[in-house]
Amino acid sequence: MVVRALVFDVFGTLLDWRTGIAETFRECAVPGDADVLTDAWRARYRPMLTEVNEHRRPWGDFDELHRATLDDLLAEQGLALPDDVRDRLVAGWHRLPPWPDVRAGLDELRRTHITSTLSNGHVALLVDLARHADLRFDCVLSAELSRAYKPAPAAYLTAANLLGVDPGELMLVAAHPWDLDGARGAGLRTAYVARPLEYGPGSAPHPQPQADLSVSDLPELAHLLRNTLHD
Amino acid sequence: MVVRALVFDVFGTLLDWRTGIAETFRECAVPGDADVLTDAWRARYRPMLTEVNEHRRPWGDFDELHRATLDDLLAEQGLALPDDVRDRLVAGWHRLPPWPDVRAGLDELRRTHITSTLSNGHVALLVDLARHADLRFDCVLSAELSRAYKPAPAAYLTAANLLGVDPGELMLVAAHPWDLDGARGAGLRTAYVARPLEYGPGSAPHPQPQADLSVSDLPELAHLLRNTLHD
Repeated sequence: MVVRALVFDVFGTLLDWRTGIAETFRECAVPGDADVLTDAWRARYRPMLTEVNEHRRPWGDFDELHRATLDDLLAEQGLALPDDVRDRLVAGWHRLPPWPDVRAGLDELRRTHITSTLSNGHVALLVDLARHADLRFDCVLSAELSRAYKPAPAAYLTAANLLGVDPGELMLVAAHPWDLDGARGAGLRTAYVARPLEYGPGSAPHPQPQADLSVSDLPELAHLLRNTLHD
Repeated sequence: MVVRALVFDVFGTLLDWRTGIAETFRECAVPGDADVLTDAWRARYRPMLTEVNEHRRPWGDFDELHRATLDDLLAEQGLALPDDVRDRLVAGWHRLPPWPDVRAGLDELRRTHITSTLSNGHVALLVDLARHADLRFDCVLSAELSRAYKPAPAAYLTAANLLGVDPGELMLVAAHPWDLDGARGAGLRTAYVARPLEYGPGSAPHPQPQADLSVSDLPELAHLLRNTLHD
């Protein structure tokens, strides 16, 4: 297997959205348990992407989707927050902390492979996140460029096309089985990175997903790619 | 004027394509004057982009266009080169030296502004060039994403849209009057960087182009943006 380029899922795989968004809820002094609100907000994300992919909802970028899901959540919780606070909460998704291994791990992987984001988040959001976390990529790719959200095959195939590689030469690095399944279905290679703290300490682990490689952090992935994949 | 993001033309503005391609001609031991061949190859570039923008020629990426213009050039010169040498010459456009101020200048500009390429070169080519020259950008944007080559307005407006800024908040940095004119026509801000050596020592200078800023290198642009533009 020759992997020529790596594309990384971002939310959860590289960035700890839960810590960042819970902190934003606390900074905004929103009543209630910040962790519970964060998890409830995030839970509304994938159903909305499915609505977009099934053309039951027009294309919207993540700022628009986060605003819509926040409004739903606050209505459900009976929380009346002014517009400027809602704006600050949505903006919280533009500055999230990376997992501790990510910055150095990406730099190490970039020495041997082309690296890029491949997130459902829009390009402008990814630019803000990479700047905030000081993450260096060779390219910034997003489902926005195919107007189809992962796990739709077009999201993965557009990335391969733009990077000038065959799908089988491209590896998705992700923490989520549904994303890895989508990539494999589109013909990509896959690497699972375990992020047991994504949903907080003590949260239920994923079932072990099907993937070409399975690692606990990015340096381990760099090691495996160096040592086992050039046979 | 608040400039929130900078997009950079690449060939000629950041990279010294003439030195790089002439070197490739010499490495490939192509008969004739390497500089003359390089200039003649490059001269075939803009007419072909115009053909694409006017729908007289189907979309092609720069590898395809460079191959077509090379074949034309070699036929005109009566040079019979084997396919593998033609491939090596086209690949020469994937590894070009940066002008001496570029690496540090981009790093300095990135501290205060979002930075991105905005080249007619395709994304995969830009990724190779940035890796080869060790240039760090926040984003890699290309006319490929709008399927319209600069100076078509769509190329500039797609960049603004993907970076999440208004056209008037985006500045094109370029060495070529036709590119600056295109950007201004689309509502962008413009910065002209003089690259008097682009076409070799002693080549005729451009007429001074119309631009919001005019500088001799990227550090001077960083200085001007810091000191004069936040009024």
